[in-house]
Amino acid sequence: MFNQLGVIGCGLMGGSFALALKRAGLVKRVIGYSKSPSTTERAKKLGVIDMAAESALLAVSGSDIVLVAVPVSATEATFKAIRHLVEPGVLFMDVGSTKRDVIDAARRVLKERVASFVPAHPIAGKEVSGIGNADAALYTNRQVILTPISQTNPDLVQKATDVWAAIGSQVLRMTPENHDAAFAAVSHLPHMLAFAYFNSVARQPAGKDFLSLAGPGFRDFTRIAASDPTVWRDILVSNREELLKQSMRFRHTLDAMEHVIKTGNIEALEDLIRGASDARAGWQMNAGKPPTNR
Amino acid sequence: MFNQLGVIGCGLMGGSFALALKRAGLVKRVIGYSKSPSTTERAKKLGVIDMAAESALLAVSGSDIVLVAVPVSATEATFKAIRHLVEPGVLFMDVGSTKRDVIDAARRVLKERVASFVPAHPIAGKEVSGIGNADAALYTNRQVILTPISQTNPDLVQKATDVWAAIGSQVLRMTPENHDAAFAAVSHLPHMLAFAYFNSVARQPAGKDFLSLAGPGFRDFTRIAASDPTVWRDILVSNREELLKQSMRFRHTLDAMEHVIKTGNIEALEDLIRGASDARAGWQMNAGKPPTNR
Repeated sequence: MFNQLGVIGCGLMGGSFALALKRAGLVKRVIGYSKSPSTTERAKKLGVIDMAAESALLAVSGSDIVLVAVPVSATEATFKAIRHLVEPGVLFMDVGSTKRDVIDAARRVLKERVASFVPAHPIAGKEVSGIGNADAALYTNRQVILTPISQTNPDLVQKATDVWAAIGSQVLRMTPENHDAAFAAVSHLPHMLAFAYFNSVARQPAGKDFLSLAGPGFRDFTRIAASDPTVWRDILVSNREELLKQSMRFRHTLDAMEHVIKTGNIEALEDLIRGASDARAGWQMNAGKPPTNR
Repeated sequence: MFNQLGVIGCGLMGGSFALALKRAGLVKRVIGYSKSPSTTERAKKLGVIDMAAESALLAVSGSDIVLVAVPVSATEATFKAIRHLVEPGVLFMDVGSTKRDVIDAARRVLKERVASFVPAHPIAGKEVSGIGNADAALYTNRQVILTPISQTNPDLVQKATDVWAAIGSQVLRMTPENHDAAFAAVSHLPHMLAFAYFNSVARQPAGKDFLSLAGPGFRDFTRIAASDPTVWRDILVSNREELLKQSMRFRHTLDAMEHVIKTGNIEALEDLIRGASDARAGWQMNAGKPPTNR
């Protein structure tokens, strides 16, 4: 049980975390800060936070758990704003989709106080953003990856594990490097492909007519193309090294598929499709690993 | 009202059409043929068809409406098998996802009898196939594209329009050329990308671990990668000219996106993502055109 949760960045992720902790009875009050005062006011009106803080630092003051839920590129500035109140024993977490850059920023800014920071990435989201879409169930039955480093206080890692587990998430630990490689493959690349694909269809002369004919396959394939531009701009740039490696791999498999199509090698094409089709039919979300540390 | 529907190919598409016509009270009895007798038996057991035919020709005999619902590459052989019973006044349709090649085959085989053939493409499907997944509601609120040619009997085009409208589909007419260009963009390319992407992730050394971490965005993006290999092998090859044109366009937008990521041009990247995100958020399935001919 925590006394006060400080949420820096009252958007979909921060707001949903606040609602989840409230619903689970894990926190007495929530104080929130957002760059735009109207966002904070809205969060208060919606009952997501109890008090509005006038600065990120004031959202940390008196809190025993703090969630930094800002776009990845704003993480360093946020750490700078709060570093004087990053005390041992207070649990600081982020929700960033990339981890190496966030940890680099934390090391640079927080110095030895980085021990209080437990880097976290909940595998949850919606194609809509903003406090108005915050949802107490966003993290239920979702995986949360923690990527502690050697300096991280192990007690706080345990505390982080407990709080995510208490709101229904499955907690896994990974190194920041493995995390960034894995999510380049299963999340960042598909987002980049979906953005590029949608633009390639929409921006051709007959694009509007084509879009009016698209069906359910198109709908699902492009759902993530509607994701938040600020958030995804940051993710794609900050993890570009791994992302471009994955994109290169993808281009090779695409080349191979186009080659067998061009040459009319129908058996080889069927093999390639069957490989994907069978593997996808056998895949289940969250089926890979049992929850740990629960 | 029809006396007898002949279904050649008792799979998801053919079976669903039979169920839909039965549910709407549009047909007295259904006779079905499949290459594999066990499929036909299963269709009978499930109540999808009333009688099993021992050949495609026997499924046509006595029918006043015939649906050819076989993989695109089997269309020509099917036309050959039934051509002697392709009579004026009997409505023949297919459900193929490509139209130019199907029409070419029909012209070659049926000669002047091609007048009875109304090429059709219902924009409906599931990532699961087979008679066991047939569903009377598969075509409800879905678009169906008819691509008649100059020789097609206009009365049969009207009859085709009426029967699809009666089971809840929105009927559009297009030229075969426009159809194939449009569906290369909004359906065939995303399938090819989804197959290639799934293989690129699954076939790398850490692929299995990566897949265990994938979340809801990945799930939706790759849903169509589970599609039927035989059906999609045929579609990708038979529409390869348009497909490869669309793939080239896609590669250009992907190149542009990678370029701004590599050079760290964050404003340009945000613009590209925002273009896709806003357009996708404003897109709605079936919102483009009102149903015609109803």
